[in-house]
Amino acid sequence: MTFKRYIPVESISELTINRLSIYLRCLQQLEKENITTISSQELAERFHLNSAQIRKDLAYFGEFGIRGVGYNAAQLREHLVNILGLSEERRVVVVGAGNLGTALSHFSGFNSGGFKIVAVCDADPQKIGKRIPGGLTVEDAALLPTLVKERRIHIGVITVPAAAAQQVFDDLVNAGIQAILNFAPAQLKGHPEVKLKNVDLKINLELLSFFLTHAARLASIT
Amino acid sequence: MTFKRYIPVESISELTINRLSIYLRCLQQLEKENITTISSQELAERFHLNSAQIRKDLAYFGEFGIRGVGYNAAQLREHLVNILGLSEERRVVVVGAGNLGTALSHFSGFNSGGFKIVAVCDADPQKIGKRIPGGLTVEDAALLPTLVKERRIHIGVITVPAAAAQQVFDDLVNAGIQAILNFAPAQLKGHPEVKLKNVDLKINLELLSFFLTHAARLASIT
Repeated sequence: MTFKRYIPVESISELTINRLSIYLRCLQQLEKENITTISSQELAERFHLNSAQIRKDLAYFGEFGIRGVGYNAAQLREHLVNILGLSEERRVVVVGAGNLGTALSHFSGFNSGGFKIVAVCDADPQKIGKRIPGGLTVEDAALLPTLVKERRIHIGVITVPAAAAQQVFDDLVNAGIQAILNFAPAQLKGHPEVKLKNVDLKINLELLSFFLTHAARLASIT
Repeated sequence: MTFKRYIPVESISELTINRLSIYLRCLQQLEKENITTISSQELAERFHLNSAQIRKDLAYFGEFGIRGVGYNAAQLREHLVNILGLSEERRVVVVGAGNLGTALSHFSGFNSGGFKIVAVCDADPQKIGKRIPGGLTVEDAALLPTLVKERRIHIGVITVPAAAAQQVFDDLVNAGIQAILNFAPAQLKGHPEVKLKNVDLKINLELLSFFLTHAARLASIT
């Protein structure tokens, strides 16, 4: 596909891109329900989104809707798939075969919609050679450069303990990986040519804590 | 603590609350470096945030900074701890003792800063009684109502397969839980008095895919 305008990718925030993922989920849901056309207002109401935000987010990438009619759901879904780069297979290596790494390696969300975990590594000789659910076998992390090259891996996922995370990050970068998802609770020193996304699972518990606190306060007021 | 104004908690977006968590992380980092005062501009530059957004987010909860001087880092951290409800212990049950549930149960981020996993349950007799790293033993999910009451549990985490998630959600609600974090890739029917947060891990891979796609495109343009 071609975009109607040049995209200065650095100027698009992660939140905007996350919203594109959410719109994609919504459109997939609409397709299941055989809904073919939808306006930004209807989309917003249906899924508790903001219609002005939807239009603004999509406007970065072109003009997709027809004024007064709305979006063709299938076409917009296809556009989002292309914008997010999900039409090509994204092969993933997980480094760290502990509980989290093992869970993610056979997690359906990490093995669908363009993504595929093709290797799981660990430095621990006790773990190397172990079969994990889903069919993969834990391989030696020392083989990373070879694995990345031979299996054409694009994305690395770090699930080692915090103390080992920087070394694993550097190893992934040296092996040629350009996009890294880090689950270790460590502040990593990044690399200018590598996109690093830190996943902060605790932030979700803090969100719930906020609601528990303020719901209780509101309840005690009323 | 008291807030300077009434907070209509429903009007504050999850993104705002997530940003409060991020500000809290930043202030904790500053304290480690013995930085005691910081302006919203400095905070923004240091951590790649938006200074107008910082001021707007904090303004929901009162006036914390001193014009021309900035924020007292320790005080602002304390305010954020209180706003997020992290000064009291939040006791958590994990339902689903597979790899992900086991990983989260002894994950440091889920056992610090106010949070504590106090029970891990499963319905599978093969898993019940199993010891998991960190010291907990998997308990029978049928005992949820008793566990929630006796251990004063506030938050439930769902890590069962998608097909079992709705039943577990309903069981948690019936046991009196008011805040639930769902990792199962399932669309759950919520409950008006319960805060449900779905965690979409795949969205992070899609973000990386976006950057891989557009970085490659930019590289081929230049």
